[in-house]
Amino acid sequence: MCRWLAYSGTPVLLDELLYKPTHSLIDQSLHSRLGVETTNGDGFGVGWYGEGAVPAVFKSVEPAWNDRNLRELSGHIRAGLVFAHIRASTGTPVQQTNCHPFRHGNWLWMHNGSIARFHDVKRELLLAVDPSLYPDLEGSTDSEAFFFLALTLGLEDDPPTGVARAVGLIEDVGRRHGIEHPVQMTVATTDGRTVWGFRYSSEGTSRSLFFSTLAETLRAQYPDNPILHELSDETRLVVSEPLGDLAGAWNEVPESSYGVVQEGQDELHPFAPIAPG
Amino acid sequence: MCRWLAYSGTPVLLDELLYKPTHSLIDQSLHSRLGVETTNGDGFGVGWYGEGAVPAVFKSVEPAWNDRNLRELSGHIRAGLVFAHIRASTGTPVQQTNCHPFRHGNWLWMHNGSIARFHDVKRELLLAVDPSLYPDLEGSTDSEAFFFLALTLGLEDDPPTGVARAVGLIEDVGRRHGIEHPVQMTVATTDGRTVWGFRYSSEGTSRSLFFSTLAETLRAQYPDNPILHELSDETRLVVSEPLGDLAGAWNEVPESSYGVVQEGQDELHPFAPIAPG
Amino acid sequence: MCRWLAYSGTPVLLDELLYKPTHSLIDQSLHSRLGVETTNGDGFGVGWYGEGAVPAVFKSVEPAWNDRNLRELSGHIRAGLVFAHIRASTGTPVQQTNCHPFRHGNWLWMHNGSIARFHDVKRELLLAVDPSLYPDLEGSTDSEAFFFLALTLGLEDDPPTGVARAVGLIEDVGRRHGIEHPVQMTVATTDGRTVWGFRYSSEGTSRSLFFSTLAETLRAQYPDNPILHELSDETRLVVSEPLGDLAGAWNEVPESSYGVVQEGQDELHPFAPIAPG
Amino acid sequence: MCRWLAYSGTPVLLDELLYKPTHSLIDQSLHSRLGVETTNGDGFGVGWYGEGAVPAVFKSVEPAWNDRNLRELSGHIRAGLVFAHIRASTGTPVQQTNCHPFRHGNWLWMHNGSIARFHDVKRELLLAVDPSLYPDLEGSTDSEAFFFLALTLGLEDDPPTGVARAVGLIEDVGRRHGIEHPVQMTVATTDGRTVWGFRYSSEGTSRSLFFSTLAETLRAQYPDNPILHELSDETRLVVSEPLGDLAGAWNEVPESSYGVVQEGQDELHPFAPIAPG
Repeated sequence: MCRWLAYSGTPVLLDELLYKPTHSLIDQSLHSRLGVETTNGDGFGVGWYGEGAVPAVFKSVEPAWNDRNLRELSGHIRAGLVFAHIRASTGTPVQQTNCHPFRHGNWLWMHNGSIARFHDVKRELLLAVDPSLYPDLEGSTDSEAFFFLALTLGLEDDPPTGVARAVGLIEDVGRRHGIEHPVQMTVATTDGRTVWGFRYSSEGTSRSLFFSTLAETLRAQYPDNPILHELSDETRLVVSEPLGDLAGAWNEVPESSYGVVQEGQDELHPFAPIAPG
Repeated sequence: MCRWLAYSGTPVLLDELLYKPTHSLIDQSLHSRLGVETTNGDGFGVGWYGEGAVPAVFKSVEPAWNDRNLRELSGHIRAGLVFAHIRASTGTPVQQTNCHPFRHGNWLWMHNGSIARFHDVKRELLLAVDPSLYPDLEGSTDSEAFFFLALTLGLEDDPPTGVARAVGLIEDVGRRHGIEHPVQMTVATTDGRTVWGFRYSSEGTSRSLFFSTLAETLRAQYPDNPILHELSDETRLVVSEPLGDLAGAWNEVPESSYGVVQEGQDELHPFAPIAPG
Repeated sequence: MCRWLAYSGTPVLLDELLYKPTHSLIDQSLHSRLGVETTNGDGFGVGWYGEGAVPAVFKSVEPAWNDRNLRELSGHIRAGLVFAHIRASTGTPVQQTNCHPFRHGNWLWMHNGSIARFHDVKRELLLAVDPSLYPDLEGSTDSEAFFFLALTLGLEDDPPTGVARAVGLIEDVGRRHGIEHPVQMTVATTDGRTVWGFRYSSEGTSRSLFFSTLAETLRAQYPDNPILHELSDETRLVVSEPLGDLAGAWNEVPESSYGVVQEGQDELHPFAPIAPG
Repeated sequence: MCRWLAYSGTPVLLDELLYKPTHSLIDQSLHSRLGVETTNGDGFGVGWYGEGAVPAVFKSVEPAWNDRNLRELSGHIRAGLVFAHIRASTGTPVQQTNCHPFRHGNWLWMHNGSIARFHDVKRELLLAVDPSLYPDLEGSTDSEAFFFLALTLGLEDDPPTGVARAVGLIEDVGRRHGIEHPVQMTVATTDGRTVWGFRYSSEGTSRSLFFSTLAETLRAQYPDNPILHELSDETRLVVSEPLGDLAGAWNEVPESSYGVVQEGQDELHPFAPIAPG
């Protein structure tokens, strides 16, 4: 479906995150190992927090692997909180407004997976979006609808609860439409300080998700990369698939769980949908 | 806002319609004389009826004036019913799914104008779209929403009534939101045989619309163009602005009226919105 | 590198050629089996002979697999001589002027393979292009340079000789630059009546090339496709890789040879470069 | 033809340069007042000096006025030396490799104007490019050829001489081809520290060029813009047309002259081509 990467820690050039690793996200755009599709060429997006009042988002409908602007920008933009996503469309048009990460105010959101038979449940799901948010929907993907449902259901106040209620709603609507497994997802979201990463699917066989627990791990991963050796101990990567083969560098996020990357101790919790009241 | 052209008659190369006239639609993309904006560079689209079960639609987000594919195709595609549209966005994203003409089954639709403060009335209008049609909305424009409202309200059975009821609904919703002049429009729609062209605005000062009543007029317009001299007497053009300066060649469609281009005698009727029952 | 298809025979919708076969060219854009790269997502092009004085060429920098315009056009354009190409860049920019097929007058040309270390020999090769042709070079690929060398060296008068002399020149220049294997190629070219297909490489291990000798073969290949059953006995396909798995349907073009698809008996000959005099 | 802007001084967000002025460069892309064309919609480019070893260049083939990525980046990228260019093609393809500014090593170059009948003199001019530089030509414009001639003729050692010799060469080649007025230009170039701006044409009627002599001028120009009020006294803008109407804010560069924006005192000198020896 898609592949994504969330980075939080010592500010680095995007180049270090997107191009330099052995099995980088850009490499995954052509040669994904763990994805449902090996090619993720239906556009991409990068979001980061910097100068502006809201995070910047750079999106393109072209494949990431040969995009010159992405390469140029990656050599010149330094950030401490970065979301990057490469897309393999599950049917909706290839256009910038369908590229992740999606933004609302200070929040970013990206998704790998799908809402099953989205065409059939789209209207009912979008009717559940808060009327004040509805006009801001710009694209036509299930992923953006999912984001707006989470926003409607409390994402900004309590992200795990907002996501759990959104998943519960999608499962409820889906099952009333006879859909056995309505949700397949890994999701990352952030308010610019904390990153939440979710792994869940209605069928209990979710898309892969990994995190690098310790900056020391990264240093071991890239022994010859002096920049990464200056990373703080708080620096973390959460990724759809590992960026290299170094044993012990990556931890798989367990089924039906979510992690919190934040100042101080990170957290890992079970995740369960909350059905509509 | 936008400029458009509808052609019905003897099959001709698109080139004859789009490039050869003195003040062609392609010229209007850079130098519109009568439009609100002189530049219509936010994408374009061409629809025509040919081999397939449904009309073909070719769309691009690039300006029409330098689009090589449009020029190539125009020299090779011959059709007897053609819709062409150049876009000047009123705020919604420049993407193919926002380019006209829009298609549903065998129908095409294109629009110049806008639904005032669309952002504020979007949700209420889209809720009025038939639930079976709703998931087929692909873009985010007021124009596509307008089309789907007309489809919901009977376009395919009786186009003037479907459009009148859609305009009535938009005016009703708009006025309940305190919008003084909710609708500004010229619209063309076709089922592949008949073309309907509408000119209307809530304020009574509508975008320009012209038609060429007689093929003889075209022949006079382009005395040196042998291809146009082979056009049937039934051949008609309906356009946002005249394609040349020849006196007498073009008739302005009156305010609040619509025309029907069909086999046999064409028609011109008054147009009035039908308020929701 | 790339994948391509040349069709000559009974006029068919592009759709029948590009989308309907089991392992169609569009499928190869995502999942090439025999290519050096499995993904050919760096743009595509289609050329065909029809209404215009010269063949039409439609090109895009987006991957073929999700290109809506290609799908639309394929359902509406019918032609009896079609070249289609999907690109995997070997380093030159992804832009329309680098997409195949290239056109000069009534000729089309497409190439899979490369001129080794093209950057190093580019100037010397382009200096060998006829000065009257030089300004018409639009892109920056080795493939277009190769075409213009063949045009310079007699392609339009005697295609096999023009290509043999161009290959001889490229090998001569390359070897003087210390390049062991200067040319890797399958090439298709046509004047709108006859199609020539070449398979050659300096190292004697060329990219794959197949042809369907008989229309009967195609009929067996697609037993349920009534349109293909109406194909003339002269109808032929020449392809980078077979469009399906039916045993006996495809013949591999031998190393260092070229075929001629023409009215009457087709031909297959050995191919050898002609070194500069 | 085109419009451009060169900024040197206190680091500012691109947004302050590109969007905020009354008659900003983005506004000029739709409504140029002094250009040969009112619309400059054939792509754009922005170059700036920042983190990387060479300047970053961001280019797009879409019109600047509705480009979302440009707007996003402009709110997040801060630089003290910025080149920005909006293009109106004089015939060469709309593609990223034809967008300005062009880059070579640490140098940037942008051009408004044209080499007359470039198609006829292209080969002779490109043959004059240093063979070691020739393979790095990526696009097909006269402007890039001009840049590479200047590089060949000493730009990096002595920019005014390099440009004067390039102009002399182009005039010499052009006149031998019977071209009366071979060169029309305003040009900006920089090595990342100093900016040189040239105004010249063979006919003595050159495209417009203006500079803001003093930062105080800018402060007067934008009295309500607190960011610009923090600009150093060294801050300068060189532009194709003024960004606003404030009397006295802009000085026209005289015919056949060039200016140097540098640390310390700026300079203004006469410019005359140097004919080939």
